[in-house]
Amino acid sequence: MKSLQPKNPKDSLTVSTRIVLPNDTNTLGNLMGGNLLSWIDLNAAICAHRHSGRVVVTAAVNNVSFNQPIRLGDFVTLESKVSRAFSSSVEVFTDIFVENRSTGEKQKCNEAIYTFVAVDQIGSPIHVPDLVPETAEEKKRFDAALRRRQLNLILAGKMKAEDATELKALFL
Amino acid sequence: MKSLQPKNPKDSLTVSTRIVLPNDTNTLGNLMGGNLLSWIDLNAAICAHRHSGRVVVTAAVNNVSFNQPIRLGDFVTLESKVSRAFSSSVEVFTDIFVENRSTGEKQKCNEAIYTFVAVDQIGSPIHVPDLVPETAEEKKRFDAALRRRQLNLILAGKMKAEDATELKALFL
Amino acid sequence: MKSLQPKNPKDSLTVSTRIVLPNDTNTLGNLMGGNLLSWIDLNAAICAHRHSGRVVVTAAVNNVSFNQPIRLGDFVTLESKVSRAFSSSVEVFTDIFVENRSTGEKQKCNEAIYTFVAVDQIGSPIHVPDLVPETAEEKKRFDAALRRRQLNLILAGKMKAEDATELKALFL
Amino acid sequence: MKSLQPKNPKDSLTVSTRIVLPNDTNTLGNLMGGNLLSWIDLNAAICAHRHSGRVVVTAAVNNVSFNQPIRLGDFVTLESKVSRAFSSSVEVFTDIFVENRSTGEKQKCNEAIYTFVAVDQIGSPIHVPDLVPETAEEKKRFDAALRRRQLNLILAGKMKAEDATELKALFL
Amino acid sequence: MKSLQPKNPKDSLTVSTRIVLPNDTNTLGNLMGGNLLSWIDLNAAICAHRHSGRVVVTAAVNNVSFNQPIRLGDFVTLESKVSRAFSSSVEVFTDIFVENRSTGEKQKCNEAIYTFVAVDQIGSPIHVPDLVPETAEEKKRFDAALRRRQLNLILAGKMKAEDATELKALFL
Amino acid sequence: MKSLQPKNPKDSLTVSTRIVLPNDTNTLGNLMGGNLLSWIDLNAAICAHRHSGRVVVTAAVNNVSFNQPIRLGDFVTLESKVSRAFSSSVEVFTDIFVENRSTGEKQKCNEAIYTFVAVDQIGSPIHVPDLVPETAEEKKRFDAALRRRQLNLILAGKMKAEDATELKALFL
Repeated sequence: MKSLQPKNPKDSLTVSTRIVLPNDTNTLGNLMGGNLLSWIDLNAAICAHRHSGRVVVTAAVNNVSFNQPIRLGDFVTLESKVSRAFSSSVEVFTDIFVENRSTGEKQKCNEAIYTFVAVDQIGSPIHVPDLVPETAEEKKRFDAALRRRQLNLILAGKMKAEDATELKALFL
Repeated sequence: MKSLQPKNPKDSLTVSTRIVLPNDTNTLGNLMGGNLLSWIDLNAAICAHRHSGRVVVTAAVNNVSFNQPIRLGDFVTLESKVSRAFSSSVEVFTDIFVENRSTGEKQKCNEAIYTFVAVDQIGSPIHVPDLVPETAEEKKRFDAALRRRQLNLILAGKMKAEDATELKALFL
Repeated sequence: MKSLQPKNPKDSLTVSTRIVLPNDTNTLGNLMGGNLLSWIDLNAAICAHRHSGRVVVTAAVNNVSFNQPIRLGDFVTLESKVSRAFSSSVEVFTDIFVENRSTGEKQKCNEAIYTFVAVDQIGSPIHVPDLVPETAEEKKRFDAALRRRQLNLILAGKMKAEDATELKALFL
Repeated sequence: MKSLQPKNPKDSLTVSTRIVLPNDTNTLGNLMGGNLLSWIDLNAAICAHRHSGRVVVTAAVNNVSFNQPIRLGDFVTLESKVSRAFSSSVEVFTDIFVENRSTGEKQKCNEAIYTFVAVDQIGSPIHVPDLVPETAEEKKRFDAALRRRQLNLILAGKMKAEDATELKALFL
Repeated sequence: MKSLQPKNPKDSLTVSTRIVLPNDTNTLGNLMGGNLLSWIDLNAAICAHRHSGRVVVTAAVNNVSFNQPIRLGDFVTLESKVSRAFSSSVEVFTDIFVENRSTGEKQKCNEAIYTFVAVDQIGSPIHVPDLVPETAEEKKRFDAALRRRQLNLILAGKMKAEDATELKALFL
Repeated sequence: MKSLQPKNPKDSLTVSTRIVLPNDTNTLGNLMGGNLLSWIDLNAAICAHRHSGRVVVTAAVNNVSFNQPIRLGDFVTLESKVSRAFSSSVEVFTDIFVENRSTGEKQKCNEAIYTFVAVDQIGSPIHVPDLVPETAEEKKRFDAALRRRQLNLILAGKMKAEDATELKALFL
């Protein structure tokens, strides 16, 4: 197999802007959590595809927090970048912004971490390019990705807690 | 405030069965991850409402793994139960089963953990009943919920790692 | 053809719970009749499939009454069970409950009777297992199914009124 | 209350043409029964509104038969006319045609009978104009509507079988 | 190639009636422009297919004006007729009416002009029948179609302004 | 009325990326024209809102060409910028790109011109900031917008052809 050219996070930047419409809201008139999760999945999947050049499938949602309600009529902007590549999977960070419709000011309201696996035509995992972080925030997210992966492996029973060197360091 | 009557997990059991239709699938003919996340959100929100007797809003997706593709035409059954109640929030476990259409055998393919906050008419958090687990699995999930909560508080910068007693025990 | 193992109604019990969302409602803020008909069709089709182990297609809606409005935000639970099997078709009863969101009390608000035909790969009808009713209500619905079938055959011009023995008994 | 001007069936004729799109189909590539039921409900509700000049709500689906599969890409035309008016309700007949895309020939494939109730601003039933049938088919459907209504009242336990004069005549 | 039988506009008349539902509206409670554009596209495509007897694809939206808001709950009727046929394309005029729900009076609120290309199985353009206009309005639209086509060819850089004889006449 | 601060096209740049999913396609497996029109409307409306700081309503679709089919699974990127502001309306240009999923190369496949009107709380038109174009392409589109406006006014019968100075120059 020929080796793949490493990529930078900016190569896979994927942006989408949406209006919260009536059929996206719950009975309080706020964007339903599940709809936002689905919007993130679509945007982050395009991002993962752009990094890997391959069809990708969602492997895990590592963590999403909903810090404030997003209201009917709000503009929501999703910005996804790959935060780390493993052998056949990529972790994608999505920052979610809500825009004040009068002042035009964008405010960050959520962030979400999803993992995707790149697959070939028959659905088998396939190698993806390495990621080389550039900015300080990209480097921070790159390092933390390893701890998140160890945590996931422990939770899935595929790694022993004592072997999760980077993760253990958090508690010692 | 009068104290609320504690409830058991079975009091909030919520079940939904769905067929994977063409507009739920990606270009591989599999259920899109984002759609499953949205289905889980709706089912788990009903469950959280049944426990709390209040309007609930999604606060966090703690973890969801996608272990196998779910295909066009498959029957998907979601079973949600509250796993632990905190002062104004509940953690909900959802088990996802796919059914073999010829044999009728159900196979567990995913599990998902979401957190919801109960709110009053103006959107302020409000107390929810305690949860009293009954079965062995319910007790195990109840205990683990505390560690997950500590982990979330640490990740959100609201707790110091050294204070997360239950979580630290995992690594020592 | 080897004979098929008869089944009980509980073998095909199919349950779904849904929230009435804004895009399900009419201009009065109530669940649109057509949407409920579609939800019933999906739930009852899974039920018919579970009984027959085959792909099923909707053959008829025998009767649905809408006795009370179902409102935005209500929880609706659909419970479908096969009520009688004929040679290649099954009649499915669906009970529809609306849940009081404060007290958690479920109230039955509709019932619906649909008929499905089981088909093979090329769409030809194929035998289905017999149904053996167990409870008193299941037996009552099983008996009435024959009268409904006679009525349908008369209305379709495929049976003469004087031959509909069970149905005639109602009027004599 | 001033008396309302009677209307003819042609005054409420409502026509809609639709293409069967991918998200309307089941796993066999055919229009799902539940979707057709929903399309009929929307078209027949406009028809009932045109007759009554009032907001209407679906009261019952009396009967729908699915005689042949409707396929992805087919053109479906729905034609609804009021078949009889009662004091505050109307029965609506909908004829469903599928169009051969090469020859342009329309073939009738289903018919459906729905009942709607006209309501005022607070949802209480309100009088509707009488219907005066004109064509031979309209008169036949007008007469049959009374028997269907008696049958529904018997099935709902609101009329005794021996009082259903028109219906009994069918069996004697 | 055998020559095709010319057709009249009435041969391709396509009518659809729709209710504006909550998920069709923007935050002002009015039908969103984009949804109306999509409804027109579907209705006009059926019309173009009926004229050509072929699969058609949307080639251009020549002009649509939105003169007045259409509100939640309004009935919208779309009437499409072919206005002119070119070698492998047809121009379709769609008149859009909104219906006063109390008086039943229909008011024209928009008109839209779309162009479709007829294609064979591999997507190549294929001849369509000529159109022979009958009414005064049909003849007027037929003539104007040529000027619109010249304008489109100029805007697309495929015709020189000085060769657009019919169009130039407008300005001289 | 205090005068409004002029803005540049880049101030209102709005980007969205979407995957063509099964329910977006026609029976040829291509993105339906009407769906693309609806996507453009949403993206361009956000752009118009960002320029005007006001609720906007779609006033006209001036022209959209569909030059090539967009296929199931393709990534579609929409980029909208205001091309000219009039007293209470803005013209928005949207460039549509399709992305080769293997090479990642973006290819422009359509452009669309929509006009929006800014309205106050009761739906009356309200002043919008002027637009100051910066790049060569922005200036070209700014100039052409005046000719398009004259053409629209003539077609709507609100301007005489001989007064359309800029437009006439095209033909002389």
